[in-house]
Amino acid sequence: MASIPRHLTGDKAATNEFIDKFDPAFPECDGKTHSLKGVLWSGDHVFDGVPETIKLLRSRGKRTVFVTNNSTKSRADYVKKLHGAGIPCDVDDIFGSAYSSAVYIARILKLPRGKNKVFVIGEAGIEQELASEGVPYIGGTDPNLRRDITPADFQGIADGSLMDPEVGAVLCGLDFHINYLKLAHGLHYLRRGAIFLATNIDSTLPMHHNIFLGAGSVMIPVANASGQKPLELGKPSQAMMDAIEGRFQLDRSKTCMVGDRLNTDIKFGVDGMLGGTLHVETGVDKREDWQKEDAIAVPLYYVDKLSDLYDAA
Amino acid sequence: MASIPRHLTGDKAATNEFIDKFDPAFPECDGKTHSLKGVLWSGDHVFDGVPETIKLLRSRGKRTVFVTNNSTKSRADYVKKLHGAGIPCDVDDIFGSAYSSAVYIARILKLPRGKNKVFVIGEAGIEQELASEGVPYIGGTDPNLRRDITPADFQGIADGSLMDPEVGAVLCGLDFHINYLKLAHGLHYLRRGAIFLATNIDSTLPMHHNIFLGAGSVMIPVANASGQKPLELGKPSQAMMDAIEGRFQLDRSKTCMVGDRLNTDIKFGVDGMLGGTLHVETGVDKREDWQKEDAIAVPLYYVDKLSDLYDAA
Repeated sequence: MASIPRHLTGDKAATNEFIDKFDPAFPECDGKTHSLKGVLWSGDHVFDGVPETIKLLRSRGKRTVFVTNNSTKSRADYVKKLHGAGIPCDVDDIFGSAYSSAVYIARILKLPRGKNKVFVIGEAGIEQELASEGVPYIGGTDPNLRRDITPADFQGIADGSLMDPEVGAVLCGLDFHINYLKLAHGLHYLRRGAIFLATNIDSTLPMHHNIFLGAGSVMIPVANASGQKPLELGKPSQAMMDAIEGRFQLDRSKTCMVGDRLNTDIKFGVDGMLGGTLHVETGVDKREDWQKEDAIAVPLYYVDKLSDLYDAA
Repeated sequence: MASIPRHLTGDKAATNEFIDKFDPAFPECDGKTHSLKGVLWSGDHVFDGVPETIKLLRSRGKRTVFVTNNSTKSRADYVKKLHGAGIPCDVDDIFGSAYSSAVYIARILKLPRGKNKVFVIGEAGIEQELASEGVPYIGGTDPNLRRDITPADFQGIADGSLMDPEVGAVLCGLDFHINYLKLAHGLHYLRRGAIFLATNIDSTLPMHHNIFLGAGSVMIPVANASGQKPLELGKPSQAMMDAIEGRFQLDRSKTCMVGDRLNTDIKFGVDGMLGGTLHVETGVDKREDWQKEDAIAVPLYYVDKLSDLYDAA
């Protein structure tokens, strides 16, 4: 049974004990340009006190890693965004689902020579991370696939003459330029034996204080037509935790996952058997959600807002 | 328990009894230009003896209605295709899922004034059938939606300023020009209370002796992001049977559904409690499929090919 989550807001002793116990902490940063209220920011502006809180954690010797399922941006893009929000960091502080996928493909999947290309459904963030790990890819932002499907495409996809025989995996992430031609290629690479991967399977994407279609809703036509489910490589998949562990040599018992979503962030930390999980109530899920009897995951700690750590420390 | 299906091939007495018993018969015509082997044709050419078989049925006073889930073509388009295959027919002999959907919206759903527009994800066949029933629509083949989504679109969809307040239903069919912009509109009309309809939910589309993404795989991003399932209006949905019954005043006990797919055609006839179901083994499913213990539907009759009716009559 899960214990009752500890409320850290305003509790100086508990907050300092919490900070001392965990290293590194993992603030959540599903950094859409226009996010629903989350942990670090809402819309275009960072929450009051968040930069100070991150700086405090660092001054106490804590490693802060920013984990995101958004695959449209590369780690370098995120560094810029965090700098813009007054949070100093470098590329090694970011762990995104695009990078996680690239690490998984390059270091764990190890596709055989002659079958080692990845067909990408997604944006530039995935391409940049695959390139950073030396993984060859096609598709993605290729302008030749950003067009209507033609009778010649149908013929060439069906008979294989238009398919690259070296593709060994299909990697799907959020793609704002999704179309029938890309989906047909993805389906047919799977039918020819490629491995089906997804950066993440979030069904929705918070933007403009509303929701749009997330990576899971862009990938699902291929899953539905092929009858296959992808291996998901973002939160809460433990493939991402394994990749993070490999990258940072973390001690799980001293690591705390910080986040606002129970079904991704907190579940990610619970399933990964991290020493801590901290729920921040400025985002998607609220206290009522983990108080439900059938809550998907229950945190060990919670605060009303991230800067409560700063205020109480 | 279902009885053992009767094999009509080569059995003169049984064939004549079958022909005499049923009126009208419903040959299947999922008339993709390039279909897998089906009932009437394979690829671009009609099976030998099919036109003669249809003519024989007509000469014996049988009404033949062609039922299809393909929503990209209108009934007029199908008449042309059947004429080209040597099968004389007129528009009243065709019943497609686009027409079925238009009939359902116009005559059963009866959307209230001021909320009676349909947002279409699909091709011209749907638009033509909605127009034939006097149903106002937007979307579909509108060139203004065949483009990339922009930041202004995200903003205007999220805040509602780009949404038509008169839309009361979202109708999804097969759309070879699917994109993020159309899917985002579909999702947000549902979030604003529109009714979710699908011409059909076939996950795949047989073409070029292979499969591509069907209407169900084009619609599923909207279903996944909204958490809603559409009311399906094509085979095997009984909404389509009801529409056919209303249109043709048929006597179900004297009606036989003819088809090659167990999960659409034969199930459609069984669920509709038609007097007969005839499985034609030139298509997707074979005898082995209805012989399985967990077969989704079992026909009452079967033939090796449609023209066996002609040969044995």
